[in-house]
Amino acid sequence: MVIPVTEIASIYGPVADDVPAVGEQLRRLSHNRHPLLGETLAHVFDTGGKRIRPALVLLSGRLGVYRRDELLTLATSVEAVHTATLLHDDTIDAAITRRGLATVSALWDSKVAILLGDFLFAQSAELAARLNSVRIMTLLSETVMDMSSGELRQYSSTRDRTIDQGDYFARIRGKTASLFAMCCEGGAIVSSQTDEEVRRLRDYGMNLGLAFQIADDVLDFTGDDETLGKPAGNDLRQGTITLPAILLAEQLPPESPILQYLHAGIEHGEVIRAVEQSEVLETALQSARTYAQRALDALCHFPDSEAKDALVHLADTVIARRT
Amino acid sequence: MVIPVTEIASIYGPVADDVPAVGEQLRRLSHNRHPLLGETLAHVFDTGGKRIRPALVLLSGRLGVYRRDELLTLATSVEAVHTATLLHDDTIDAAITRRGLATVSALWDSKVAILLGDFLFAQSAELAARLNSVRIMTLLSETVMDMSSGELRQYSSTRDRTIDQGDYFARIRGKTASLFAMCCEGGAIVSSQTDEEVRRLRDYGMNLGLAFQIADDVLDFTGDDETLGKPAGNDLRQGTITLPAILLAEQLPPESPILQYLHAGIEHGEVIRAVEQSEVLETALQSARTYAQRALDALCHFPDSEAKDALVHLADTVIARRT
Repeated sequence: MVIPVTEIASIYGPVADDVPAVGEQLRRLSHNRHPLLGETLAHVFDTGGKRIRPALVLLSGRLGVYRRDELLTLATSVEAVHTATLLHDDTIDAAITRRGLATVSALWDSKVAILLGDFLFAQSAELAARLNSVRIMTLLSETVMDMSSGELRQYSSTRDRTIDQGDYFARIRGKTASLFAMCCEGGAIVSSQTDEEVRRLRDYGMNLGLAFQIADDVLDFTGDDETLGKPAGNDLRQGTITLPAILLAEQLPPESPILQYLHAGIEHGEVIRAVEQSEVLETALQSARTYAQRALDALCHFPDSEAKDALVHLADTVIARRT
Repeated sequence: MVIPVTEIASIYGPVADDVPAVGEQLRRLSHNRHPLLGETLAHVFDTGGKRIRPALVLLSGRLGVYRRDELLTLATSVEAVHTATLLHDDTIDAAITRRGLATVSALWDSKVAILLGDFLFAQSAELAARLNSVRIMTLLSETVMDMSSGELRQYSSTRDRTIDQGDYFARIRGKTASLFAMCCEGGAIVSSQTDEEVRRLRDYGMNLGLAFQIADDVLDFTGDDETLGKPAGNDLRQGTITLPAILLAEQLPPESPILQYLHAGIEHGEVIRAVEQSEVLETALQSARTYAQRALDALCHFPDSEAKDALVHLADTVIARRT
């Protein structure tokens, strides 16, 4: 979801003015420890990104007591975590570009990308510690544990060619939804909301994250080179079996060659065509819509407000996205 | 410094019985998130190690109110940080063995090693958060920032063939001494020592860490294959210029071929022989002794105790080690 800056205002509503401040804070992290650190951090943060996670922190905070400085600190911390995971993911996948710019591992090398990711994980913890809240610190560290173990699960599944919905949902919960959930939960905690409200916002974030990742996995099959910057079916080519392929496998007779290609991990164009020509993409999108609806349900007890409208709109945007 | 378990008692004195409990706690982290995580963590923690960082936490804690459970939690946290950095270092260096066993990156692959390191960084933060102390959380995150930026500095120096004492000391302060300092400072904080005592123990740890790393860098030239598990001069072969080579370079006339080899990064046996045959190893060891002495000076205001004796003994051991 590449959102032009001009559209951020309409999507992020009452926090649209504060989201860019997160970018400023991130750039200020590029301090003078030594030149290589400043240079690489500047490159990473200049790449931009849609800042959906910081926006979730700020919008959730808007539903309570909007402590702008504290919420911006937390928003900067979660974006640092997200950036650290992207750095390590790009290293693991040997990716050459990210958001249209060369990756750190391509421009410098994988050593620099690993160490910069480590630095940003620590920086995120240092930012979170500024909030003086052990509850937030615990939440952050448990979330990063969920994320890295979710990625390890993805690695195991790829190696073992696991074709299983339960495994898929455990993976995307760890690798994507847990950080979305943390953003909303953290924003609610910092803005002094009740335990019930904290729980509901976490629920919103978790379901939004699941919807977001499923939509992303569908987009991997439906997008074209130009909008995605990679060929359709790229995940499958890399050995990652996502929901559409799992749904397809469930429908195929055991003797189907398609199923055998999937199990053997053969990068066969026929599998990608079979996914594209069946109704599994629509079924997967339906699943994304179900999670988006659960996200909306979690919001229903909050009184109407601009921030709530923006959170509702965000859930709609996530499942409607085409790029 | 491979210390047989039987010798730990004599070196770690009054905390010798508690150090093994850190190993137990580490192994308990290998919980059931999913099989690959458990399997890899078990491999990493079974490799053992001398646990010098946990011992520093516990011994520093012995100089105050010895809160065993809290100190063990902190000791486990710092050993998790140390293990995470080893995992990432081994990946960066493409190392095949560590402490005589295959590395995670060799046995599984670099992806698993990166993700497992990330998990352990987060686990260390989660353990530290259990202490309910924002001061400890901040200390831990700033230390990891120092460590990763110290490693990045090492990377820059290697790339640029920096031959400079100031750069060397900044590097080893970040990559080794900062965690030693944190162990002692953290142990002092948890055991409710005064600000002055906290500062002194941090000072002890920082200087001990510098002495430890310099001695390690000397050992890289003097040890043989059997005791080190790698050829003499291995750092230089990998492009890392440490104190002995820097001292040698400072003495050489500008036209010396040795100096030109160093600047050009040529892996020439002549450089290693020149280091071995000059007095620079003795000069470097003298520098290690100076830092060890500063570490001892930082202890002089503490009343005599078994724990203080062990810390004194540790400083002597660090500079006397031959393996």
